[in-house]
Amino acid sequence: MSALPLEGVTVLDFGQVYNGPYCGFLLAQAGARVIKVESPQGETLRGRARATAASYPFALLNTGKACITLDIKTPGGQALLKRVVRQVDVVLENFAPGTLARYGVGADALRAEHPGLIYAASTGFGTTGPYRAYRGMDITLQAMTGVMSITGDADSPPTKAGPALADFMGGAHLFGAIVAALYRRSVSGEGAMIDVSMQDCLFPALSTALGAYFMAGHQPPRTGNRHAALSAAPYNVYRAADGHVAIICIREGHWRNLVAAMGRPELLDRPEFADMAARARHMDALDAEVERWTASLPKHEVFRIAQAHDVICAPVQSLDEVVNDPQLHARGTLEWVEHPDLGRVALCHSPLRFAGAELPPLSEVPYLGADNRAIYCGVFGLSESELEALEADGAV
Amino acid sequence: MSALPLEGVTVLDFGQVYNGPYCGFLLAQAGARVIKVESPQGETLRGRARATAASYPFALLNTGKACITLDIKTPGGQALLKRVVRQVDVVLENFAPGTLARYGVGADALRAEHPGLIYAASTGFGTTGPYRAYRGMDITLQAMTGVMSITGDADSPPTKAGPALADFMGGAHLFGAIVAALYRRSVSGEGAMIDVSMQDCLFPALSTALGAYFMAGHQPPRTGNRHAALSAAPYNVYRAADGHVAIICIREGHWRNLVAAMGRPELLDRPEFADMAARARHMDALDAEVERWTASLPKHEVFRIAQAHDVICAPVQSLDEVVNDPQLHARGTLEWVEHPDLGRVALCHSPLRFAGAELPPLSEVPYLGADNRAIYCGVFGLSESELEALEADGAV
Repeated sequence: MSALPLEGVTVLDFGQVYNGPYCGFLLAQAGARVIKVESPQGETLRGRARATAASYPFALLNTGKACITLDIKTPGGQALLKRVVRQVDVVLENFAPGTLARYGVGADALRAEHPGLIYAASTGFGTTGPYRAYRGMDITLQAMTGVMSITGDADSPPTKAGPALADFMGGAHLFGAIVAALYRRSVSGEGAMIDVSMQDCLFPALSTALGAYFMAGHQPPRTGNRHAALSAAPYNVYRAADGHVAIICIREGHWRNLVAAMGRPELLDRPEFADMAARARHMDALDAEVERWTASLPKHEVFRIAQAHDVICAPVQSLDEVVNDPQLHARGTLEWVEHPDLGRVALCHSPLRFAGAELPPLSEVPYLGADNRAIYCGVFGLSESELEALEADGAV
Repeated sequence: MSALPLEGVTVLDFGQVYNGPYCGFLLAQAGARVIKVESPQGETLRGRARATAASYPFALLNTGKACITLDIKTPGGQALLKRVVRQVDVVLENFAPGTLARYGVGADALRAEHPGLIYAASTGFGTTGPYRAYRGMDITLQAMTGVMSITGDADSPPTKAGPALADFMGGAHLFGAIVAALYRRSVSGEGAMIDVSMQDCLFPALSTALGAYFMAGHQPPRTGNRHAALSAAPYNVYRAADGHVAIICIREGHWRNLVAAMGRPELLDRPEFADMAARARHMDALDAEVERWTASLPKHEVFRIAQAHDVICAPVQSLDEVVNDPQLHARGTLEWVEHPDLGRVALCHSPLRFAGAELPPLSEVPYLGADNRAIYCGVFGLSESELEALEADGAV
């Protein structure tokens, strides 16, 4: 690919917090011109208006975007949005349901101005169904979707998964839907109205646990780090000399490789470990054998030996190890940046890699409204005096 | 949108287990013709060849796909793949790194046959960097990427997030990358080589915890269901009369709404709850006040009252509640199916919704190789005798 795939595409990104902004991040890193639109108070995560980032997540997710302000609560802001929307390809937002429509600038109003527009909304529960007006954020979606019911041990309370997976699954799916609509438009010329619900996005990821549920006819107890149906072993987190490692064997070959890595060929002759079903039945004894090996070595040494034997294994890394991970740095995923507000932090590039097309550099997020003149006048064709009048009106 | 966005696109889906097959599921549900290619032994999750599904996840993720066999280990299979690849738009795979290349049918070989091909690979660690040959599956990626280090309580061991989030984040990102490349091809005619690493996909989702890490200069202890930096409250899972609910207040308005929902206006006058910083400092006392209310009511009643007051809240649902969730059924996300091998199960449609375009029906997965004749002869133009010769050779 000689250029990034979305070159020439222009996006108005009304994203807030994680979900919408992550979608905008993926679009910008795939070559689109992404214009972040904030109220004159700034987005929730920005904090002080003159900061390029009050918080690390804000700096991470808004790199590569131009920053403009627009107050959708004012008639001037509403008229401005209806005007400039004719010049963009995509509007994305993850406001509480119906926010833009309440101010007369929802999907219908904007698509009336520009029928080829792709309008993409991500919400907690979607724009249809009995919960369509309900609000959701990551932790409540993790509760609602069963994620908490399957995370943790049998005797622990329902537990949140550490990552903001509802938000980021939502953002990744929203990106896919927008790009699919761009493809469709390139074929048929049609615009689109996209409706992505975080609740919908999480259901398929429960596959293993749902399989165990349908098989048993009821929900089995939480299984901690073991397989949700306790039907595969080794499959666990094991102590190492300096921490923990995860190991998984889901085929006979994996098990043979692990036995070789451990230097314990005699385990292949043990009838209680003869096949997957037997190993699952004798999971405790098997895990003890595996841990006898892992506990004798540092976790990165277990990792190295295991991978050299084609065993699927990794160390449990701390955040300190993650931000210094040699693989993430070698791939250009992570990059150390000296940030004026945050100090030295590791920011990241997109996970979407296209051979031959270099990813955009990681730039600081502009101050709130810093690009108003460049975008409104330079891109959208407003005159200086029009912009000044809008500023005087509080529309931008 | 008058038709699904990927109508007319043809995909060879070599997906295994979750990551690749989920990408293929999203493609099929977005209108592409997806042809699942299996070895004559069948994919890991299929089990018995005559079954349409040995496991629930297999039925869930492979609906809407045609099923053909092709043995890439045979010269006949390799020649066949090089021939038919000229007639498809996309090849996707999530084999261990380099598997197809080892048999002479990797990205370079296939793109030599068809320069407009989009070849998309998802692996644990990507195709570049020191770990490029390393194998990864969901649990080991959760270990490697820090997910386990931030899931669970301060005194619990590192804990796996219940959902297979590395696999499903990988599949959702792979879908987005493929569709972005399809868009690019519609503009420039170019094919693409796509490289998505599950490790890369998980990093951004750690935003909150990474923010706390960079702020403190070290990784704080795990915080269970509370905010990763303990800087927001209420933000927790609370006992209800019949289970638990999650509640989050990240703006002043959320807190005022919650106080109204609880019928406790006097809490607004308490100095220790005066602003977010104060509430975070007095988190234990505040959580006790919230729980006094939630524990007095059934969880769905807390949910109803809270949402009526615009409070961001949801019940912690069990899998039984999730598969019967009225919202998921009203939106058409879930559908009860009487499956010949699995019995009555809830399968799902795509989270990607385009107004005006109906999603494809949920069909049973065909038997292993059931579509060989229809696809090889009907779509790719082989003669019956050619197919019979390939069958005799064990190439299909």
